[in-house]
Amino acid sequence: MSAAPLAPLRLGIAGLGTVGIGVVKIVQRHADLLAARSGRPVVITAVSARDRTKNRDADLSSYAWEVDPVALAQRADVDVFIEVMGGHEGPAKDATEAAFKAGKDVVTANKALLAHHGQALAELAEGLGRTIRFEAAVAGGIPVIKALTEGLAGNAIRRVMGVMNGTCNYILTRMETAGLPYDTVFEEARQLGYLEADPNLDVGGIDAGHKLAILAAIAFGTKVSFDNVLLEGIGRISIDDIRRAGDMGYKIKLLGVAQMTGRGLEQRMTPCLVPAASPLGQLQGGTNMVVIEGDSVGQIVLRGAGAGEGPTASAVMGDVMDLARGLHLPTFGQPAAKLADPVPAAVSAPASYYLRLQLMDKPGALAKVATVLGEAGVSISRMRQYGHADASAPVLIVTHKTTPDAIAVATAAFPATGVVEGEPVALRIEEL
Amino acid sequence: MSAAPLAPLRLGIAGLGTVGIGVVKIVQRHADLLAARSGRPVVITAVSARDRTKNRDADLSSYAWEVDPVALAQRADVDVFIEVMGGHEGPAKDATEAAFKAGKDVVTANKALLAHHGQALAELAEGLGRTIRFEAAVAGGIPVIKALTEGLAGNAIRRVMGVMNGTCNYILTRMETAGLPYDTVFEEARQLGYLEADPNLDVGGIDAGHKLAILAAIAFGTKVSFDNVLLEGIGRISIDDIRRAGDMGYKIKLLGVAQMTGRGLEQRMTPCLVPAASPLGQLQGGTNMVVIEGDSVGQIVLRGAGAGEGPTASAVMGDVMDLARGLHLPTFGQPAAKLADPVPAAVSAPASYYLRLQLMDKPGALAKVATVLGEAGVSISRMRQYGHADASAPVLIVTHKTTPDAIAVATAAFPATGVVEGEPVALRIEEL
Repeated sequence: MSAAPLAPLRLGIAGLGTVGIGVVKIVQRHADLLAARSGRPVVITAVSARDRTKNRDADLSSYAWEVDPVALAQRADVDVFIEVMGGHEGPAKDATEAAFKAGKDVVTANKALLAHHGQALAELAEGLGRTIRFEAAVAGGIPVIKALTEGLAGNAIRRVMGVMNGTCNYILTRMETAGLPYDTVFEEARQLGYLEADPNLDVGGIDAGHKLAILAAIAFGTKVSFDNVLLEGIGRISIDDIRRAGDMGYKIKLLGVAQMTGRGLEQRMTPCLVPAASPLGQLQGGTNMVVIEGDSVGQIVLRGAGAGEGPTASAVMGDVMDLARGLHLPTFGQPAAKLADPVPAAVSAPASYYLRLQLMDKPGALAKVATVLGEAGVSISRMRQYGHADASAPVLIVTHKTTPDAIAVATAAFPATGVVEGEPVALRIEEL
Repeated sequence: MSAAPLAPLRLGIAGLGTVGIGVVKIVQRHADLLAARSGRPVVITAVSARDRTKNRDADLSSYAWEVDPVALAQRADVDVFIEVMGGHEGPAKDATEAAFKAGKDVVTANKALLAHHGQALAELAEGLGRTIRFEAAVAGGIPVIKALTEGLAGNAIRRVMGVMNGTCNYILTRMETAGLPYDTVFEEARQLGYLEADPNLDVGGIDAGHKLAILAAIAFGTKVSFDNVLLEGIGRISIDDIRRAGDMGYKIKLLGVAQMTGRGLEQRMTPCLVPAASPLGQLQGGTNMVVIEGDSVGQIVLRGAGAGEGPTASAVMGDVMDLARGLHLPTFGQPAAKLADPVPAAVSAPASYYLRLQLMDKPGALAKVATVLGEAGVSISRMRQYGHADASAPVLIVTHKTTPDAIAVATAAFPATGVVEGEPVALRIEEL
């Protein structure tokens, strides 16, 4: 700290979309602040994108230009390669690997890259004495990777939960507040540009699943294991369920949960009910939230913008500043070579469930449903039957804690009762 | 990361109260985890407390014992001096200084020490090439110092806000939910052991003010300036105001706000109204919350336990793990020698205010009050008068944005109207 000024940290930025330009703007706007905080100038020397002629919202004229991101990653005047192109194969992966081999550190916002190749990239980087950082890959501007890896490093982590796809939370919130069906709000979201080119990345839970797999690796010291994330999207959530869940004191969220149980590592990204009065229940619109539970710290809740130019660029710059200050940690908080192979839990932990049935107006109908539940070993905590003018009525059931298997047995047995119309809905209730 | 195993990091813990014993427990319970995460063993070599015979909830038999914390700080077998004694003069300060001079880094939970001597200690430490870290000093287990100093280092910080004294928030929440007056709940809190020996540290806002001054220094690159924190405790908050504020859609919190304005640095720790539906408004009981607003990231909200053995020890261990991993940052995120002298704002920024008056049942009474407000330049946004059986009735007013001076002029002028009974109440409304 009292030594001579350090040399500038020189950045090469691959990808000049929203995030890349956001980073350029911060470096240009806050040159003095960044130097004061890191003890050295932080400068951009070169950038890369396919189309040089495109009109971009920043002055790039003083930076060298590379069409090929691999060439950018190998430039002698680049210390840190910033990968904000996206995509988990091709240029993003090639250039990241090239950067390590050329002796550069890497900052990336690419959750897909890490979810699919995190272990291999970590081993490559660490073997070469390099660092890869990826705060922007999870929950946008929220410094959650840092909190989990560093701030809470004295804790055995019990559970990590999160609402980490703003588009899904926007859709669910909008369905509730405007009383619109899923398809309508989905179309709205598409027109607003909130959806990825492949919308299933958002509404199918894949994007959020990538993020969860990254958090789980850090939390539990296991190799990133995206293939073991139980994925279920929000496409089957109806406005009815949102309303009925609300009546019972819950909100429906696309919720990621990672926890180490006696049965192994559980990773789920599925629609769940959470208490309406909890921080997760109160989360509206596109905001993200991550909940971390540690054995000493208890429950920590982090909330902020999960996407967008400023928040994502802020996260990238947090990583850049760490590198400028000389912080070099193993990728997932422990040396990659020592991360354990995760043993995935075959079955999710027991939980209460929300069931919605359309019950026909026949004598003994409720008794038949109750019998099916009882025979499956599912006991009822709360039940509500709605008044009705039709030949059937919605019945809501909140069960006591039970296994997913028992719920599957019960829901499979409902049709044979002859009193349940259509498909029953079963959603897990996550306790906070 | 691929180098030979590093030598153990050896801790000396001064103070074996709740926090100190919490740290001992984590080091003992998680030896393997800490070593895996930091790449080196983390061990305790020596401890210090006044009374060796006291029964403590941990096995300390393998550690050397020093009665004098200064002697502990100077031991050759200590790398990191952990100061969890408390008190901002005497042993805590002496031992911290001795540690730096003996070539040790320091981790402390002592907000009073930093609020009063942070600049001098930072200059001493940095001049000697040493590091002092203090995550546990602010908001308990929430890694807020790390978020602000590191994760959000790419942002110009606009505002930092926080509910950072759990006891005050407990008292205000309990008054509301149980409908009990301040004095009764204060006495309850005392009997539950929630209050400091000098309760004014809690309910007078001093403890929370210390924390705010520390956050402000990091956020704005200014020297810690506790003397410039506008302090007001919660003693004058009545159950009436809590209820009336609730009627208008607000909660009352002891809220810290630090922001850099055109008038200078504003630091306030005062009872404020916040929207009931906001994250701060929803905060119940002893939990802490810090809100950070940056120019790129927008608003980040951090929530967790603000006190207690586990959470505070978690924060201490986060700092220890940083040191074990070789992270050395300037105390307040920039070299102490370069921190600016803060120019305190003489007057708080404009805001809306909540006014509660007891209005006598006389013709033209309301007109007189409205005239006073108008003459002071205060305009009314919303007003509510309650039905009454007595000779006077409560009137609630939410003003448009106005200056503290205008509010002071108006409230000073109310008695002369002859229609306002008792002291009018004026509370700032903090927008989120």
